[in-house]
Order: sequence, then structure tokens, then C-alpha cells
Amino acid sequence: MKKIFFTPGPTELYPEVKNYIGQALDEHVCSINHRSNEFVEIYKFTVDNLKKLLSIPSANHVFFLSSATECMDRIIQNTVIEKSFHYVNGAFAERFYKTAVELGKKANKVETIYGEGFDFMNIEIQNDPELICITQNETSTGVAINPENIYCLKKSFPDSIIAVDIVTSSPYVNLDYDKIDCAFFSVQKGFGLPAGLGVLIINEQCMKKAFYLKSKNINIGCFHNFISLYENAVKHQTSETPNVLGIYLLGKVCEQLNKYGIDKVRNETEDKADMLYNFFEAHQHFKPFVKDIAVRSKTIINIEVGERQGEVKKMLSDEGILVGSGYGMLKDTQIRIANFPMHQLKDVKSITEILK
Amino acid sequence: MKKIFFTPGPTELYPEVKNYIGQALDEHVCSINHRSNEFVEIYKFTVDNLKKLLSIPSANHVFFLSSATECMDRIIQNTVIEKSFHYVNGAFAERFYKTAVELGKKANKVETIYGEGFDFMNIEIQNDPELICITQNETSTGVAINPENIYCLKKSFPDSIIAVDIVTSSPYVNLDYDKIDCAFFSVQKGFGLPAGLGVLIINEQCMKKAFYLKSKNINIGCFHNFISLYENAVKHQTSETPNVLGIYLLGKVCEQLNKYGIDKVRNETEDKADMLYNFFEAHQHFKPFVKDIAVRSKTIINIEVGERQGEVKKMLSDEGILVGSGYGMLKDTQIRIANFPMHQLKDVKSITEILK
Repeated sequence: MKKIFFTPGPTELYPEVKNYIGQALDEHVCSINHRSNEFVEIYKFTVDNLKKLLSIPSANHVFFLSSATECMDRIIQNTVIEKSFHYVNGAFAERFYKTAVELGKKANKVETIYGEGFDFMNIEIQNDPELICITQNETSTGVAINPENIYCLKKSFPDSIIAVDIVTSSPYVNLDYDKIDCAFFSVQKGFGLPAGLGVLIINEQCMKKAFYLKSKNINIGCFHNFISLYENAVKHQTSETPNVLGIYLLGKVCEQLNKYGIDKVRNETEDKADMLYNFFEAHQHFKPFVKDIAVRSKTIINIEVGERQGEVKKMLSDEGILVGSGYGMLKDTQIRIANFPMHQLKDVKSITEILK
Repeated sequence: MKKIFFTPGPTELYPEVKNYIGQALDEHVCSINHRSNEFVEIYKFTVDNLKKLLSIPSANHVFFLSSATECMDRIIQNTVIEKSFHYVNGAFAERFYKTAVELGKKANKVETIYGEGFDFMNIEIQNDPELICITQNETSTGVAINPENIYCLKKSFPDSIIAVDIVTSSPYVNLDYDKIDCAFFSVQKGFGLPAGLGVLIINEQCMKKAFYLKSKNINIGCFHNFISLYENAVKHQTSETPNVLGIYLLGKVCEQLNKYGIDKVRNETEDKADMLYNFFEAHQHFKPFVKDIAVRSKTIINIEVGERQGEVKKMLSDEGILVGSGYGMLKDTQIRIANFPMHQLKDVKSITEILK
């Protein structure tokens, strides 16, 4: 039976990925030298297509790391001497916070109840943090933050670096990269690719901070510090032999999405999300976890199913549809349905029909 | 025309890799959850087959990182408070040394002239280093160190951690993992796989040191510190979503080599190396760079071709055979021929026939 992964990531691959891998093998992408012109061309192709897709300003830098988890690590290491501040509304925001703590920073946080957004107007950020971290789309709870709130934050704290986790919202989320400093995602979510590649997008303010830390002899790490990443990125290369296949495939998927049209992708994402939320709003037993419509994620849809979770997952998997469990303390009573660009409306419809 | 990559890595893939990738896609390896039983099974399969292949004691830990470069970084971070010592005989040993310097350690080194081995009996290591780093097979120069010299080092410095770079010698090199503390490689060399996975093998002494550093509040990094890696590894998992496909493929290649027989692989490697060295020893114009037969690498074969480098590379590439240039300051006057398990004797023979 055909399986379709509606899991939050790793998730379903784009159907075209198999062919792209075949092309990569035919073109010896996995054998070429990572300092060769062939690699430089692949690197440029991927960055150009990604920048086009997400409207990333040309002045921003795109770095390839190994995971979003590594991105958190490197951001803290390269931009914080002492103080960071974290908006925590779930397990992944908490991880960003804990990364700062483990790296010995004075990290402060504001927390919400899981499933709720933030009351941005009434949160006071004290002590002028050097870095403010915000999980735009919290994969554990299915809460999404309106980018406008993030832009306001940048306005209020122009000297702080604003880092935005878009792991499960990209490429759907339409961010204005001129109004934040740094964003990151990994490719096994909305980009429908094999895991093993994290993408970090930063502006000049982040680079300046890294150079400042370096000048003060603060440990910013080694091969993946921003300076090393930058020095290689301007040559369209990486510090180490990277996941060349991953970079190649990301370029191909971005090219494909550019051809299809990002607006169309975004509209379709909203249509599918509406279909799911409307269905579960009207459902007798299963309800959306996030009550406030304004903060409901379009890409990670958490549904409360209570003690019937096993039954629900089985009903779906019997038809070849795999969804995620809840995360952390929500593990046994929720399902999570990912709604990424490769997920088809007809298959979303099937979910509603199976659970009617 | 068919191309064969005799480059030091990334290099030729095993011909079976294409099928393994096909299997992985059929089995949804790139879509499964990295906390699932399916992933645990893949992880166990790979570690079991790797341990069998390289005779790694069951008490040792195998960690999956993103590159050998990252391995250097994490080893320094997790085992050194103050002092490391480095045997430097080429660019990659120098990189290990520089990693320690960049991470703020007091790093000492002994250097040889490129292309020569070390006079182990007459090198005095002072100041009791916490970590001694040795590049067993130096990819830039084609110099290999006899493992017996490394075991002697461990005997003389039982309290120091001995870290061995086997990036381009594994799986050929037959190391006794009970006589060293730590070794690492990446998969795009002798394991003939797409780049994007580093493998770090450590013993209990390394773990104890990491716990000690942690207890002293020394920064050992975050998601990829040894403690986090260990805590996940015992559950057959990783700290972050890893390169699942890479881990799967490594297991498949190890299984294949186990079936074929590692002794056979090692004998064939020596036969092919002998063929190349004998040919170039007798050549009128082109000579092996490493003069001392005792330290000639069997897997990375550097040949001095002087100003005819372009011509030599072209003669080979016209027949579909791609070799590497020299490295660093040897870039324009040498070629490097990799001799890994996937490289066939008949193709090695072709090299000698083309350059006759």
C-alpha cells in the first residue's frame, strides 16, 4: 500500500526528489570535489533559487549547517556575550533557551501555556538582551506567531539581534528578512528532503557581532563560526566537505517551487489548513488544540484526540496515511498533522473522510 | 563516457550505493521519525556492522556527526581543559592543531617536512598534554603512520587521550581500538558514500574526561557534546534529526564489506597500492612523493609530476579517470590517486597503461 507521511518532519518527500537524486548520481554530484567549479555552481544555484523563493535580500548570507539544532547552537555562540531572551511557547523554543543556558549565557525567558500565543504588548523585556529568540512556528504545539509581532520587536530593540526559528513554517511563512536579523530551518520539513542539512540566513548585524566577539577573544567556535562560514560562503563554498547532495537537492526543490509559484504554494497551504481546522472544529470528539484562530499554525496542526489517539492513528495508517503523535507532554493525547507544500489537497480530504 | 573518480574524497561511490538509495526510498527511510523504532533499528544495524567490520570493542561508543572536521572540533572541546599536542605532517594534521588554537587551548606541535614520517623515538612530548592528536593517514601528503607507533605513544602517556584521524585510511587501516582512545573518519572516502556524515569512535576514558570538564563548568558545547551524544547513542538515537539516509547507507556498505571480507579488502588495497608505487618508482618522469617506503600510504598515493600536471590529469580524464591535484603548496606539481575498496584493480592498471 502507498504510504503518505503527514508527519511534522522528517516528512513526505516531494515526488520529484527521487528523480533529482537519480540526476545527481548521473552527474556525479556525490563524487565531485567540494572546492571545484562544479560544486561552486551547485552552491550558487541553490542559494540563488532559495533567495528568490523566500525573497531574501541579496546582502544577506546563507550558511549551510547540518541541522536546525546546530543553527541554534551557532547563533548563541556567535552573537551572545552574556544575555539572551527567549519567547518560549513549546519544546523547540525551550530547546533554544536551554542551548543558551548550556553555553553559559544568562538566558531569560517568557513562557506561555502550551497552545497559546504571547501577549506581546504586555511582555516586558529587561536587561537589553543581545539576542532575542522567537520560534515563529512551534512544532510541538502548533502555535504560529504573526511576523508583524516580530517586526515590532525589532523596532523596539534595534540593537538586539532577532533570531527566528522557521523550521516548520518555511517556505510557507512570508517573512520580511529586512525586519529581522537571522532565521533558520532544516530541509526535512516543508522542503520535503532527506534530513541532514540546516539552513541559516543572517544579515550584516549578525556578522558584525561575531567579528566583535572574536576581537574580544570570546570563543565563537571553530569551523562553523560565522566568520569561517562567511569567508567560505563568499567563495560559494563551505568550511568542511558538506552534505553536497542535500545542497543540490535543496536547489532543485527551490527551482521547482519557483516555477510553480510561491504565492500559489501559500494559498494552497491556507486552503488545506482551513479544510482541516474547519473539519475538526465541527468534529464531535476531536478538536484543534490551539483555540485562538489568530495563532493557529497553517503548517503544523495539533488535534486533541484524548485517549483515542491509538485508534485514530490506526484508522489513518490503515489507509496509508501517517500522522505524528503529540510532542512531549502532549504525546499521548494529540495527533499532529503536517501541512507542507508536497501534501496534496485530495489526501488532506482523505484524512477528513476517514475521521468523519 | 563512463567516469571513475580516483579522487581522495569525495570519491567514487560503491556501485551498489545507487540501489541502496533506491531501497531507502522504497522503505521511506527519509520520512520516518528519528525517534521511531524503525530508526533505532537502522542505527543499531549500522553500528553493529561498523563495529564488526573494524573490530571495534563493544564497550566503545560510536557517534554520528556531520563531518570529520566537526569531529576534530568536538574532540578538542570535550577532552581538553588546557593542553593538547599534535603530530603535524600535513594540512589536515595542521587543521586539527589550528582547531585547538582557535578553541583557545595551549596547543603544541611537532612538525615534519611534508612527505616524511616522524622520528618517534626522538620526539619529546613535554607538559603532559591531555590530548595527543595524530593523523594516521595524512590526506595532503600521502604519509601513513604505522599504528604500532601510536600504540607506543598510548603506553608512554596512558593518562593522555590519543585521538587518531583515520579519515582516508578507514576501513583499510587495521587499528587496535583497545590501544587508542578515539578515532574518526568521514564516509565520502573509503566508505564510498555521499558526504555529510562523520563517524567518531571513543572509549570510556574520553567520556570520563567530558564528564569531568562538565563538572568543572567548562564549556563542552551543546547538542553535540559527548554527554548528549552518549545519552542518545545508548538509546540508538542522535541528539538532533541526523543524516538518516547517510547512516542507513553506511550500514549497507559495512554489511557489504563484511560479506566480502575485510581481510580480502585489505589485501586487495595493498596489491593495488603496490602496483601503483612499483609503476611510478620505475617511471622515467613521475615519482612517488613519499620516499620512505615504510610511511607510504596505501590509500592516498601522491605522485610528483612537476609542471606536466595538467597534461597528466588530461591524459587520464580523456579516458574517464579523474585523479586529485596535490594539496596546498603541492597543488600544482603533484597528482593524488586514491586507492579505496571500490577502486578496481583493472582500473588501477588502466592508470599505469595510460601514463606508461
